[in-house]
Amino acid sequence: MERLEKIIAYEFKDKELLFRALTHTSYANETRSARGSYERLEFLGDSVLSLIVAEYIFKNFKKYPEGELTKLRASLVCEKALAAFAREINLGDFIMLGKGEQQNGGNERPSILSDVFEAVLAAMYLDGGYEVAKRHVLKFVEKELENHSVPEAFHDYKTQLQEIIQRNPEEVITYVVTDERGPDHDKSFTVEVWLNSNVIGTGVAHSKKQAEQAAARQALELMGEEI
Amino acid sequence: MERLEKIIAYEFKDKELLFRALTHTSYANETRSARGSYERLEFLGDSVLSLIVAEYIFKNFKKYPEGELTKLRASLVCEKALAAFAREINLGDFIMLGKGEQQNGGNERPSILSDVFEAVLAAMYLDGGYEVAKRHVLKFVEKELENHSVPEAFHDYKTQLQEIIQRNPEEVITYVVTDERGPDHDKSFTVEVWLNSNVIGTGVAHSKKQAEQAAARQALELMGEEI
Repeated sequence: MERLEKIIAYEFKDKELLFRALTHTSYANETRSARGSYERLEFLGDSVLSLIVAEYIFKNFKKYPEGELTKLRASLVCEKALAAFAREINLGDFIMLGKGEQQNGGNERPSILSDVFEAVLAAMYLDGGYEVAKRHVLKFVEKELENHSVPEAFHDYKTQLQEIIQRNPEEVITYVVTDERGPDHDKSFTVEVWLNSNVIGTGVAHSKKQAEQAAARQALELMGEEI
Repeated sequence: MERLEKIIAYEFKDKELLFRALTHTSYANETRSARGSYERLEFLGDSVLSLIVAEYIFKNFKKYPEGELTKLRASLVCEKALAAFAREINLGDFIMLGKGEQQNGGNERPSILSDVFEAVLAAMYLDGGYEVAKRHVLKFVEKELENHSVPEAFHDYKTQLQEIIQRNPEEVITYVVTDERGPDHDKSFTVEVWLNSNVIGTGVAHSKKQAEQAAARQALELMGEEI
């Protein structure tokens, strides 16, 4: 338990809470523990997580319309994402399971891992408050957003570039795909951004959209704009 | 706007936020407002609401398993419930709609009312913090739970008190409403619980029933009973 507290960088005032967050029903039943299992905490953790993520992307993806925010949140709080977060801190090692579940590899099952991730989050929230829970979640979320296919979403470089250029109505911006290579599952695109007849930036990425963003970003950098 | 601030009992530091929370896309489009409309706020408000309600029922329905909590939360945050909350404070009167939407009765449509209820909640959260948002939501939720068929699910302090007192058949418990104030949508009741001729507890809440529960709880605390 102390080892987990170290990993999550939070020391519980009420250790019972953390204990319960790690207790699967199968274990609670076997040991007839009055302490109960993690389900109710998981229920609360789901909402704690939702607000932390919603608030973070609301504030950091200012140009995202509601529909995009909803999609992005969904991708960050889905079972797959949460199970991956749980694995990063070896949460499976700390889950208390009944014998049957243990033999069936319960502590590696994505559904259990993601549930316990939420339950532990709720425990942190109840024990330490919103800020403690938030700090914990954002460690994972920020990293995830980097690998995610949305880093450009953080900041829409194309729009920023467009806004600067269109101050002068004669200027025209064009994006041109100059290269496209690799097999279908691992394609790479090169895009150039032209200002009138000059290349002002180049970007390479796994999608055209992202290559355009990367090109726009390079153009902004060259122009000395703040990004 | 000031009238709405009075109704919701909160004065915004940033009036723009409230303004945006009340602006429907149709209005934003017609007036070409750079201020934008309420959709993004609604996205955030959805999560704020979810956490407030989840935390409240998690703490007050201690015997409810996860599945029941999930059902209860869903019933409290569904469009129908939120539209009813919105109607209680005449929120429709304050929504800014484009002409077409206005003629189609947009400000009475449940989907719009519930969206704006969430958007205003998000605005309160951003402007005043979680506690401000919580106070606002719980006014509606507590009242709703009364009408809902579930108040007995709360820890029933009145019954607990009754059981202790009736060990001695001469003792008589009475509940007296001593104060009732505020407008219809924000009433507050004060109830005293009497043991024979002595006040042994006082409770204040948004409904008589809950004020009685609060009074009974205080009495139990004073008597040193475990709650």
